[in-house]
Parts: sequence; C-alpha cells; structure tokens
Amino acid sequence: MQQLIVVKIGGNIIDDEKQLNAFLESFVAIDGHKILVHGGGKIATEIGKKLGIEAKYVNGRRITDAATIDLVTMVYAGSINKKIVASLQALNCNAIGLTGADANLMPANKRPVKDIDYGFVGDVKSGQINTKILKTFLENDLAPVFAPLTHDGGGSMLNTNADTIAQELAKSMAALMDVQLVYCFEKKGVLSDPSNDGSVINEMNEQLFFGLKGKGIISEGMIPKLENAFAAIGKGVKKVIIGHAADFDKLIAGTEGTSII
Amino acid sequence: MQQLIVVKIGGNIIDDEKQLNAFLESFVAIDGHKILVHGGGKIATEIGKKLGIEAKYVNGRRITDAATIDLVTMVYAGSINKKIVASLQALNCNAIGLTGADANLMPANKRPVKDIDYGFVGDVKSGQINTKILKTFLENDLAPVFAPLTHDGGGSMLNTNADTIAQELAKSMAALMDVQLVYCFEKKGVLSDPSNDGSVINEMNEQLFFGLKGKGIISEGMIPKLENAFAAIGKGVKKVIIGHAADFDKLIAGTEGTSII
Repeated sequence: MQQLIVVKIGGNIIDDEKQLNAFLESFVAIDGHKILVHGGGKIATEIGKKLGIEAKYVNGRRITDAATIDLVTMVYAGSINKKIVASLQALNCNAIGLTGADANLMPANKRPVKDIDYGFVGDVKSGQINTKILKTFLENDLAPVFAPLTHDGGGSMLNTNADTIAQELAKSMAALMDVQLVYCFEKKGVLSDPSNDGSVINEMNEQLFFGLKGKGIISEGMIPKLENAFAAIGKGVKKVIIGHAADFDKLIAGTEGTSII
Repeated sequence: MQQLIVVKIGGNIIDDEKQLNAFLESFVAIDGHKILVHGGGKIATEIGKKLGIEAKYVNGRRITDAATIDLVTMVYAGSINKKIVASLQALNCNAIGLTGADANLMPANKRPVKDIDYGFVGDVKSGQINTKILKTFLENDLAPVFAPLTHDGGGSMLNTNADTIAQELAKSMAALMDVQLVYCFEKKGVLSDPSNDGSVINEMNEQLFFGLKGKGIISEGMIPKLENAFAAIGKGVKKVIIGHAADFDKLIAGTEGTSII
C-alpha cells in the first residue's frame, strides 16, 4: 500500500513565523503523500477583539456563536490557511488549502444541545469523509492543508478541533493507505514527569496510558490527545507520534517524541 | 469536446444574501462542468475599517499594501469563498474553494513598479495556469469556486481582479474544453444608451465595440470588461455573455444579456 503521513500543528507554531517556516521546510522534505492539519492560533483572538467579538464561555467551555464561526472561518480558512499554502508553494510543495466543506471532504453534525449549546461546533460524520477525492488529490501530487473547519451540509461552516480532524483523516485514509499520524505540540513528547521536559516516554501502549492516567501523571490537556491517538490506532492507523514540531524529522525517524502503538 | 461554463459574479450580488442565493440556485441548475469566480464586496471594506485598515489610493488608483493583502486574503478566501462553498454544498453542488495559490493554479507576477507601486497586486502568468489539475477537478464532478487572489510563488498572496481571473481561466481551459464565459454584473447587458436600462445590445462584435467606444457611448467601467471579453474570444473562448445575475438562466439560454462573438 502507498504511505501517507498526516501531520497536525497547533497554534504555538502558527503564531511564531520562524518556527513555522522551519517546520514547513522539514514537512516539505518528507517523501511521499502527506496531509497537514493546522489549528487556530492567537490571531483569531486578536482579530476578534478588534472586531468586538469576544470569546464566550458557558460552564468553562468555549462557545462558537454566529459571530465567532464567521470570525474563525475568515481567519482559519483565509489568513492562516493561505499563508501556509503560499509558503509551501514557495518551497515547491504543491499545497492545496481545504476545509471540510470543500469537495464535501468532511461533513459534520452541529453538536446537539444537551447541558450546553456549543453553537457552531461540528462533530465529524466519520463514515462520510470523501476519501476518494482526497486520494485523487494525493495521487496528483497535491499536499492537502486542512483548516479546522467542517460543515453541516445545510450551508453552515462548523468549528472542529484540529486534533480531531487529523485523527478522522488518518482513520478514514487507513482503509486506502498505510497511514502515520503525527501530533506536533509544545512538548517533546508525553512526559512521565510533567515537571521534567527530559522525561519523554518513547513508546506508549494503551495499558501504560491507563496506568499513568490512573496515577494522575498524564495531564488533563494530554488525555484527549492520547485518546485521539488510541482511537486512530484502533481503526488501522499504523503509528501515532507525539512530539515537538522543531524535532519533526526526528519524530518521523523515530528518534524523538512518543510513539503510540 | 466537453463543455465548460466559467461564471464571474461581483460584489453587488455577494453583498445581497437573497440575490446571492437565487443566483447560486440557478448556477447549480446548469448541467455539466462549471467554474465560479467571485469578486470582493463591501464586507472587506467594512472589516478593514473596524481593523483600522483604510483603503489607500495613489493618483486615484487603489493600492494593496501589506495590511490590505492580509485583509483581502482573509475576507475573500475565508469569509466570502467559504460562505459560497457551504451554500453550494447545501444545494448538492460539490464546490471546492480555491485561490491561485492552491494547487499552484494561478501563478502571477507582482506588478512591477513604474509610475505607481500598486503593492501586492498580481498579473497572471497566462501560460502557467494549472489546467491539468483543474480538468481533473472538473472530471471528478467538482465545481471550483475561485476567490480573486493569486500568488507570486515566493510566499506572498496577490490581489487580482476577478474579471481578469475569469478571463484567464476561460482562455486557458479553451485549449481543453468548449468554454463559455459569463460576466454577471449590475446591468442587464451592454447598453446602447447608458441612461436606458432597456437598451441592451444583444450581440456585439469588436467592430461595433470600437465604434461605440469612439462615440463615448460605452462607459468607462464597461471598457475593461469588454476588452477582457474580446481577449477571451481571441484565445478560443466560444462565447462571452454579459448580463445581470438575476437573469442567469436566460443569459445561458441566450434570451437576455449581451453576447460577445
């Protein structure tokens, strides 16, 4: 089967032009098929403030109201996505910027209202990802660059977590290709001691995860990331790697970061 | 040869949700391959004002400085493009939003500084449009939706007139398909009497154009539109139609608007 690497980068890299450019150079250097998924970054909050759109929370959970979905669509699919696409093109990588609405790549359901109305937040319809057209793009040597947005099929864009988008893409493409999923974040990997950046766990399985979670060693922010990783492995993704974007080539080589197996 | 219709809509339609939706319904109703090119609209100016980015002019010509290219990239490729794509998806049209940077579809040169430095404005490299990938998109039943943006291949997005983008797409695709180009604007067609909206000229050739231009009957805004139209015809486009978006199906049927032959 053909190889595919799905990489997710977060706001911390996007906000730092030097880091972003260094990452993009190492991304371009990977041979073969690749997909990049990017998160948001501070720019949405900054532009939101200037436009008088403030971040809204209910019970500590962020809400995407109508003004906010317009804001993040503009910033994620416009500013951030096209900046990355143009930069990749400058590195001779034939990037194509996409959201879940484009080519109906990732239909989603607007999250149902239970205790909280999250607003325009999308839960991906996992079985309906347009893998056929994605494969066509890859076979035409395009490198898809995804903004963290889906759509409801009724004309509304929806806000969807970039980790989730990366996981859903990796899982669905695993039926067609040998897929590796790489989560880049601000740490060098999953740490056995949260206060010691050198304590990276090189390899982690589900048993070890439950053990560390039980002991409270794995921090709150890391739990959904690892759950995403194990969900991907459970659906046929060959390998998930978690680490720092600055180590990207070493993450791929397996000499840095945490490999989830 | 396969048929292709390239349609350009301007800001006046984009700014009016009811008109836009009516147009999109008639766009979806066309059989066969189609590409939509959209212009800007008031929203860029409105958001620019709130962000403190004012429209800049030198000798009466609009300048795209660094803040303005970031603004229009955000609004054109983010807000407007994704609104249209999501709306088309809701009408079961498999739209894909694009700029000239995506898939390196439309490389351009930053306009050289002569009397005026236009800033981040792109002149399309006509011979380098990625028609191969566009044809692949069309043959996979995708409907490309273009924002009026190109790129310089060096990492910068560039502002490019939507009429020009539509003309360049039509001309380059004419080598592969039978292409019709439709310019929708705020009038019912080219008028023989600018003060009388009923005086639409049904058919126009270059000779008639030069005659009317010489007599000052064709207004200033219409001249570049018609020059674009004749440039397209000269490069193999079968037909160019100019008229009102509300008459879209009649423009295609040839019962309304001005046909350029």
